[in-house]
Amino acid sequence: MKLAIIGYGNVGRALARLLREKRKEFPFTIAGIHTLRHGTAVDAAGLPAEVTEAAEFGPRAASVEEFLDAARAQVAVELTTLNPSTGEPATGHIRAALARHMHVVTANKGPIAHAYAALRDEAAREGVGLRFESSVMDGAPVFNLWRHTMPGVKVLGFTGVLNSTSKVVIETMERGGSFDAGLAEARRMGITEADGAYDVEGWDSAAKAAALANVLMDARTTPQLVTTRGITRLTPERAMEIARSGKTVRLVSRGRRTSGGVRLRVRAEVLERNDILACTPGTSNLILFHTDLMGTFGTVSIEPGVEQTAYGVFSDLVSLR
Amino acid sequence: MKLAIIGYGNVGRALARLLREKRKEFPFTIAGIHTLRHGTAVDAAGLPAEVTEAAEFGPRAASVEEFLDAARAQVAVELTTLNPSTGEPATGHIRAALARHMHVVTANKGPIAHAYAALRDEAAREGVGLRFESSVMDGAPVFNLWRHTMPGVKVLGFTGVLNSTSKVVIETMERGGSFDAGLAEARRMGITEADGAYDVEGWDSAAKAAALANVLMDARTTPQLVTTRGITRLTPERAMEIARSGKTVRLVSRGRRTSGGVRLRVRAEVLERNDILACTPGTSNLILFHTDLMGTFGTVSIEPGVEQTAYGVFSDLVSLR
Repeated sequence: MKLAIIGYGNVGRALARLLREKRKEFPFTIAGIHTLRHGTAVDAAGLPAEVTEAAEFGPRAASVEEFLDAARAQVAVELTTLNPSTGEPATGHIRAALARHMHVVTANKGPIAHAYAALRDEAAREGVGLRFESSVMDGAPVFNLWRHTMPGVKVLGFTGVLNSTSKVVIETMERGGSFDAGLAEARRMGITEADGAYDVEGWDSAAKAAALANVLMDARTTPQLVTTRGITRLTPERAMEIARSGKTVRLVSRGRRTSGGVRLRVRAEVLERNDILACTPGTSNLILFHTDLMGTFGTVSIEPGVEQTAYGVFSDLVSLR
Repeated sequence: MKLAIIGYGNVGRALARLLREKRKEFPFTIAGIHTLRHGTAVDAAGLPAEVTEAAEFGPRAASVEEFLDAARAQVAVELTTLNPSTGEPATGHIRAALARHMHVVTANKGPIAHAYAALRDEAAREGVGLRFESSVMDGAPVFNLWRHTMPGVKVLGFTGVLNSTSKVVIETMERGGSFDAGLAEARRMGITEADGAYDVEGWDSAAKAAALANVLMDARTTPQLVTTRGITRLTPERAMEIARSGKTVRLVSRGRRTSGGVRLRVRAEVLERNDILACTPGTSNLILFHTDLMGTFGTVSIEPGVEQTAYGVFSDLVSLR
């Protein structure tokens, strides 16, 4: 199966390494790589390792459409991370791939948060697959769990701790450091969205909540419709006061079915120190699903790295074979 | 698809209610129920609700074999809870069903902890399915997660908090109560194995560890080979001392691949109060998988009840259609 990769940062490179490692058991061919800043490489016979490992490629294709036409692959792998507040241009990339009867795998939450129902229906009309495991929890099984297991179960709601940057900022302030020091630490760890504002303002969490709600609860919503308050008004003094009382703060995403539809919100919540939502170590994430038949259960992802995000994309590719 | 149910306590009754509720979308017919103390009922055309909801059935069949021959079902559902230290007679029941070319679904960890490889191979030879989702985590997706997702991933080990009774006993002692008071409380909650000794001596955790290791790591082990120490030597004084130091105790099951095979152990561990292993509320359970490609991730089940155990059995039945 041939792949055309759009966007080639840390996740793309980790994916290429994983595909190479697993090529005997799971053969895939990278027929093209298209990037914003490092050019484009295409070879319908497959790019060799020295190309996929290169820092620079050839001249950049004039457009994603031109790239996809040249690569002639069965699957488009959309790994860009540009402007998540609109879901573009990633959504446009996905539409271009679907229009070319290509399967699509993405790690980008934007399109799923903004346009899932429309993309799902387009993929169904084209008779191709649309997969996005890594868009919310860095490769840990969430969407594939619901795709392949849990027959007959209805998701009534969810509760998630899905943003690592806000946690690092909170923990820094609990120790007396400043908000900006916490943000700088998160940037150093490489875990922030573009500049960190998306994280601490709650936008990343809102996008993940919208994506979860669109896929698991058919919410047909967008991040803008999530009632969102980030942690920007939390001060070190308040954080330390909360810590002294034996509690802590986490940025929590919640979704719930109501008679009017699906209600979503993101906000900083004061939690007991041993609340499971407060006990995920480091950059770990946790999602709890509230269901009719299976009560409340969930998935936890312990300190995932780029290799795990790449694995989520890989697992989606395998599911398309 | 016709079912022959062996063992009909709380889980069996909850399963029957769930099957009735879901019969339009997921049609199954209960062709027989066989119990130790309440008799046997068989009707190859399907037992009506007034029978499946009855407290007593007809005269008990002379043997499980005779019952299975009379029920003439496609699937045997093994829900007994007898003598978990040998995995019998449940393993014998399963063998009798497999020999009759029946699929098998069980919630009983005994057979999976003691004889998984042999049963798996027998099922494969007969061309039938063997399922056991509810045998370790009360219906939460563990085995089905690995069956249907996570392609190419190798389980290198696991860490689990899988026994609720020991937690209730520990929490009682942390508040100054006696060990026996904690055990009595767990019995009142209906969560203990037969008499609670299996729980606090670590046997339930060892059986779950052996089952996980046999299925996910091909360990070919038994509960007796798990290095097991329960919580019977923990005193209220020690529990309170640990709590005063800001920590707590949990009965933890761990498995790990070594050069010599799979090493398994169950023991009480002192943990930080905000260690994720210590933060599962009430009777919740948590399993973390340590893997090559997906790092560490896991499944948490929040305060599952008998309806969730029944749902796990139901999800297995659906997977066999």
